[in-house]
Amino acid sequence: MRQRYYIGDIGDYDGQEVTLEGWLAGRRSSGKILFLQVRDGTGFIQCVVGRGDVDDEIFEELSALPMESSLRVTGCVAADSRAPGGFEVSIVGAEVVSAAALEYPITRKEHGVPFLMDHRHLWIRSSRQFAILRIRTTAIRAAKNYFDSRGYVQLDTPILTPTACEGTTTLFETNYFEESAYLSQSGQLYNEATAMAFGKVYCLGPAFRAEKSKTRRHLIEFWQIEPEVAFADLDDIMDIQEELVAEMVATVLSERGPELAILERDIDALERVKAPFPRITYSEAVELLNKAGHSFEWGGDFGAEDETVLSREFDRPAMVTRYPRAVKPFYMENDPDDDRVTLSVDMLAPEGYGEIVGGGQRMMDATELEARMREDGVPIDDYQWYLDTRRYGAVPHGGFGLGIERVVTWICGIPHIRESIPFPRMLNRMRP
Amino acid sequence: MRQRYYIGDIGDYDGQEVTLEGWLAGRRSSGKILFLQVRDGTGFIQCVVGRGDVDDEIFEELSALPMESSLRVTGCVAADSRAPGGFEVSIVGAEVVSAAALEYPITRKEHGVPFLMDHRHLWIRSSRQFAILRIRTTAIRAAKNYFDSRGYVQLDTPILTPTACEGTTTLFETNYFEESAYLSQSGQLYNEATAMAFGKVYCLGPAFRAEKSKTRRHLIEFWQIEPEVAFADLDDIMDIQEELVAEMVATVLSERGPELAILERDIDALERVKAPFPRITYSEAVELLNKAGHSFEWGGDFGAEDETVLSREFDRPAMVTRYPRAVKPFYMENDPDDDRVTLSVDMLAPEGYGEIVGGGQRMMDATELEARMREDGVPIDDYQWYLDTRRYGAVPHGGFGLGIERVVTWICGIPHIRESIPFPRMLNRMRP
Repeated sequence: MRQRYYIGDIGDYDGQEVTLEGWLAGRRSSGKILFLQVRDGTGFIQCVVGRGDVDDEIFEELSALPMESSLRVTGCVAADSRAPGGFEVSIVGAEVVSAAALEYPITRKEHGVPFLMDHRHLWIRSSRQFAILRIRTTAIRAAKNYFDSRGYVQLDTPILTPTACEGTTTLFETNYFEESAYLSQSGQLYNEATAMAFGKVYCLGPAFRAEKSKTRRHLIEFWQIEPEVAFADLDDIMDIQEELVAEMVATVLSERGPELAILERDIDALERVKAPFPRITYSEAVELLNKAGHSFEWGGDFGAEDETVLSREFDRPAMVTRYPRAVKPFYMENDPDDDRVTLSVDMLAPEGYGEIVGGGQRMMDATELEARMREDGVPIDDYQWYLDTRRYGAVPHGGFGLGIERVVTWICGIPHIRESIPFPRMLNRMRP
Repeated sequence: MRQRYYIGDIGDYDGQEVTLEGWLAGRRSSGKILFLQVRDGTGFIQCVVGRGDVDDEIFEELSALPMESSLRVTGCVAADSRAPGGFEVSIVGAEVVSAAALEYPITRKEHGVPFLMDHRHLWIRSSRQFAILRIRTTAIRAAKNYFDSRGYVQLDTPILTPTACEGTTTLFETNYFEESAYLSQSGQLYNEATAMAFGKVYCLGPAFRAEKSKTRRHLIEFWQIEPEVAFADLDDIMDIQEELVAEMVATVLSERGPELAILERDIDALERVKAPFPRITYSEAVELLNKAGHSFEWGGDFGAEDETVLSREFDRPAMVTRYPRAVKPFYMENDPDDDRVTLSVDMLAPEGYGEIVGGGQRMMDATELEARMREDGVPIDDYQWYLDTRRYGAVPHGGFGLGIERVVTWICGIPHIRESIPFPRMLNRMRP
């Protein structure tokens, strides 16, 4: 393939002439000099052109070119400590590929969120969204690498499933050749079956919750990475959660410094995300809440506000274990030391972000599991395959789900989850 | 975390005592010696125990233990050229974790496909399925690495979309808060928008086609990796396809030799998958078909049978370019040299496997694109955001979709796509 030059690698070309292909992201004029900000998807760079450096015709064209027009510019790369990014390009030739026909909708003035969301396909071109979504791709890669480098097998679990494992109220339903199908909310039950075949597995894909809640933490369609490990107990699961999250943060810190700078992220807060993370029980968490003047009764599930209070108690992610049986699904293993609680563990991100991971050790005994399922009204006939995982070589095992967008929102330090995915799906928001 | 020993790493422990945790996959008895085949998800190994090496009680238990019971065995690892895998373990201690309660459904006798598909959650424990799905995970990782190492940004495109881009007959529909939503068949249109923001992008996720066809090449729910590149033409797209597929095959060859051996795959056929791949036009392909005695009229789309014939003409994947306008979607760019055809390219796998990749250069001109969309009955109002990609800085660009399961089916040399995904979704098959 032909040689391409990217702004992201511009430091490699110091002193050389390059041709950049991209879009006009900004312009200011200082008399007879134009300062063009050009972006090509790998970065932003300042290009400088004086009248006389290029044909008059192209100089005039560049002077009036609408924002987000596409262009090719050729020029010499030079380190310049005053330039944002440390380099600039002195243009000796330019070509407009396609002039934007109309005034670009997103300008320097403040736009309301609904307007920006309606123009999400263009909003993602701005430097802040660029930074968030580059961090997202790095965080996903770090998570996948964590598992791949430790011998986990990625086994994609189905999205279309015939049954609703945790109730139908938040499920999307569709017609599958004259039968009802539901969009998966989690790959966990299938993961348990694949873990019995492959030992250490994970799935990474979209999940769907038709929740009518409008919070800054919820997406209707979100991405999850869910590992499941055979011959693992609650302590193993906590170790994996801790290592995984620490590695995701460390990778973003080492590879996405410029993007974190664009977001003005508090780097110190991220640098504290190192093992060991605090580990407290649900009962201790309830005590903490009450001590913090946030009254909470033992037995209930933590809401977003409770998690926010809790997560401010720690300077790094904290793991809360042993939730009451009543607030966790049927598949959670009993705590052998306290029959009121389960071997469950959620991880709360600090700085008020709340739950980013949920999981635990799974119930191993087939008879008790079936009894729990009947109690919870799970349609047993449809889950015979799941019970088979306990009938044929049951083992202690566990896993968890990590919500990609929740982690990205926290790592980026942004106030709302909607910016952490390219095209968010929310209550009353399915476009573009 | 505690030290774990895996069969996959057994060569590292030659001469050492290890404890393996896994399942009983086979057993034969030679008088006073038991040969147990144990699997732990990372591999299979033969464990040998003589009466007297362990307590009589556990020896009897092992002698009668149902298949797929879970167990821990401790013993010394020794290289043994006669053993499958090259090593065996001489057991000095064993513990049954959970005896399988019933006779394991899958035995050495021949089972029909419907029976095996009904027991897919157990079938994946057998060595052949183990091999296929390990190859799948390696192929996916190789594809992702190809793009990650070249600076592509992974940007997940939405599954729930408000509109049907290529007709509604093969779409799954669901209710999205009182509005119709459809499950995505491709991330391409969204990729085009993200490519204008990030230059080189890809998405990797599930896609859905409610097709009532029952062939060995179709899944209702399948996984696709779809790159899209700004400032790229048809030749660039072909180069990327070729490099990507060659790298996927090379990675499987180098990392999954034992699994390919389990499948008795013709390695020579895979080793020939090196660039350059043959590149022929649609018109040349039509000539080839007719010369091969397979009558075909210029202008129609190739069916599965035509692709099979074509793909047997080459010893490696072949790229067919410039399909007629009528058989390709509205977004394909015109061939400037022949207005009957488009700048499209499909890749056909050899050995009769047929199409594994489809893509091309996208139409750049906003006015012509909109006219094509109107012609095809695409609801223009819903696609204003897509047209914005041409209004604001249009650039030559292109991409393609690679069907993960089709590539895996071909690399594995298996006759049907249903074994290339953990839990296949097909016509009349949504369980388990």
